[in-house]
Amino acid sequence: MGKVSIRDVASLAGVSIATVSQVLNGKGARFSEKTKAKVLAARDEIGYVPNASARSLKQGAKILIGVVVPSLRNPFFGDLVQHMQENIPDNVSLSIMTAGAGQADQTVEILVNSGVHGIIMAGQLAQPVAIASSLKKRGIALVVLENHDGLVDADAVFASDKMGGHLVAEHLLALGHKHVVLLGNQVYTDNLQYRTAAFKETMLAAGAKVSEVATRNLTKHAGRAAAMAVSITQATAAFALNDELAIGLIAGLNAHGIQVPNDMSVIGYDDTDYAEFFRPALTTVEQPLWLIAEAAMKTVVARINHPDAERQVAAFDTKLIVRESTAPLS
Amino acid sequence: MGKVSIRDVASLAGVSIATVSQVLNGKGARFSEKTKAKVLAARDEIGYVPNASARSLKQGAKILIGVVVPSLRNPFFGDLVQHMQENIPDNVSLSIMTAGAGQADQTVEILVNSGVHGIIMAGQLAQPVAIASSLKKRGIALVVLENHDGLVDADAVFASDKMGGHLVAEHLLALGHKHVVLLGNQVYTDNLQYRTAAFKETMLAAGAKVSEVATRNLTKHAGRAAAMAVSITQATAAFALNDELAIGLIAGLNAHGIQVPNDMSVIGYDDTDYAEFFRPALTTVEQPLWLIAEAAMKTVVARINHPDAERQVAAFDTKLIVRESTAPLS
Repeated sequence: MGKVSIRDVASLAGVSIATVSQVLNGKGARFSEKTKAKVLAARDEIGYVPNASARSLKQGAKILIGVVVPSLRNPFFGDLVQHMQENIPDNVSLSIMTAGAGQADQTVEILVNSGVHGIIMAGQLAQPVAIASSLKKRGIALVVLENHDGLVDADAVFASDKMGGHLVAEHLLALGHKHVVLLGNQVYTDNLQYRTAAFKETMLAAGAKVSEVATRNLTKHAGRAAAMAVSITQATAAFALNDELAIGLIAGLNAHGIQVPNDMSVIGYDDTDYAEFFRPALTTVEQPLWLIAEAAMKTVVARINHPDAERQVAAFDTKLIVRESTAPLS
Repeated sequence: MGKVSIRDVASLAGVSIATVSQVLNGKGARFSEKTKAKVLAARDEIGYVPNASARSLKQGAKILIGVVVPSLRNPFFGDLVQHMQENIPDNVSLSIMTAGAGQADQTVEILVNSGVHGIIMAGQLAQPVAIASSLKKRGIALVVLENHDGLVDADAVFASDKMGGHLVAEHLLALGHKHVVLLGNQVYTDNLQYRTAAFKETMLAAGAKVSEVATRNLTKHAGRAAAMAVSITQATAAFALNDELAIGLIAGLNAHGIQVPNDMSVIGYDDTDYAEFFRPALTTVEQPLWLIAEAAMKTVVARINHPDAERQVAAFDTKLIVRESTAPLS
């Protein structure tokens, strides 16, 4: 197959080359939605990618992989990226981009324009199915770090959030807690939805009560700000949706004179690098980051080399890590 | 001036286009050092950049900025990048790359090849003067986050490490400590060299004793592993070169039955996001990350728009943050 050019896209869409260029470079505000849709459809149909990413992948050629994470302020994602960096073959480079809420889809296009051959998506796509399909047609590999059965055009690598949520509930129930706060933000990603659903299901099936306290985001600061709201529920334990929230919550509870774990148990999620260094050391759920990073890297490189291979899905177990922040109900 | 092509580089260097391509793409191992040097000199002389980055910067065009950090496992750098992300104009995107020891120079070339218009360097270049000169000739903006007078071809944004090291020493001296451990890795970057020099100078001028304990790197794990070595010095306080080391050291000292700050004072550096959440809350030196991030972003964009403007240097003050991990000598 000859190389597909911007001229081919323009021809198929029935518009000028200048129009295609402006639409694909995000400068198409003055064109109608219909025109933009035609250009995007034509691009996908013939699999056009801009020059930078149209490099042929000869033996030993340099491969550029884009990694999208929601925030690098959360050490979970910093650690994930660092594990990837430590697992890359010599001829691969990582370009990392952060994408806040609603920005992941647009970030994919920026990465494509900067010449990536594949993308590892650790953020939440707004239109995952459409993006996956578009990237597949354009010959760019996509690996998502989530469990989403509808994503037939993307390989997936993840640690089971269903198992994780279940492990948390089982641990708190075994300690005798019958009323637990679920602490986290309201706009759940797919992973967080699986995590919370499994947690609530297990708690409710055992006859326990779950109160929910929403936070603005998943940071230490949001966790600390929620301490008062958590304490007035009269619950005896809290499940914070990640370690950041848990550490913030513990600090906030301390400031209100509530000691963890004596007065309230707190469990986090992720087993971030600092969880064992914190006092009280954090009880949490470990996601095997090094395995996820290694598998994601292998999967995206394999997809680049074998675009037509079957869909790959790697699911890893999560593991309960019991430390000092949870205790039996007194 | 017409567009400079790879053909021009080959012609000037007196070698084939294939040779230029292979050398510039890091696949020139089979060529002599002399040939490689000729190619690089010719590239710099005529200011050649590969296609991806040769985009003209018309009004409103997309700007791609590369950011190089040593590691994203250290929350200091994750936080720095996140502040940058929160400060970017609409038409700017960030491509973040991590570069371990000795890899920063090579990472610059990967970013140039992926089409960046400018680079913010938070890592340690092995050949800063040569890289800065080369990027300048090629019309790519460079901002380094360090204080290095010899870097005439790069703009600089930094918080004063001289002031920071001095503040640490003054604080420990005021608390009555006369023998202090300096804990950190041996391969100092420029910033760490300024920091340690100012610290030692102030301590020694006051007649205090400084013992040094080297670590493998600047992580929590390295700090914890150094606890025994720190304790046998019989020093009454420790200055860990960053918060990561400090938090690891405190955990390691605890494990040996040494309480902070009662038995030993520990001070960190950076005022990372978690320093206030840790117990004991960490005494440390704040680098104004949001100011550094904002200035770096403004400076690199200004340099892209005005390549021939005078060199810009922005120096910010550091600030001592006293919390619970340091106490008067008992």
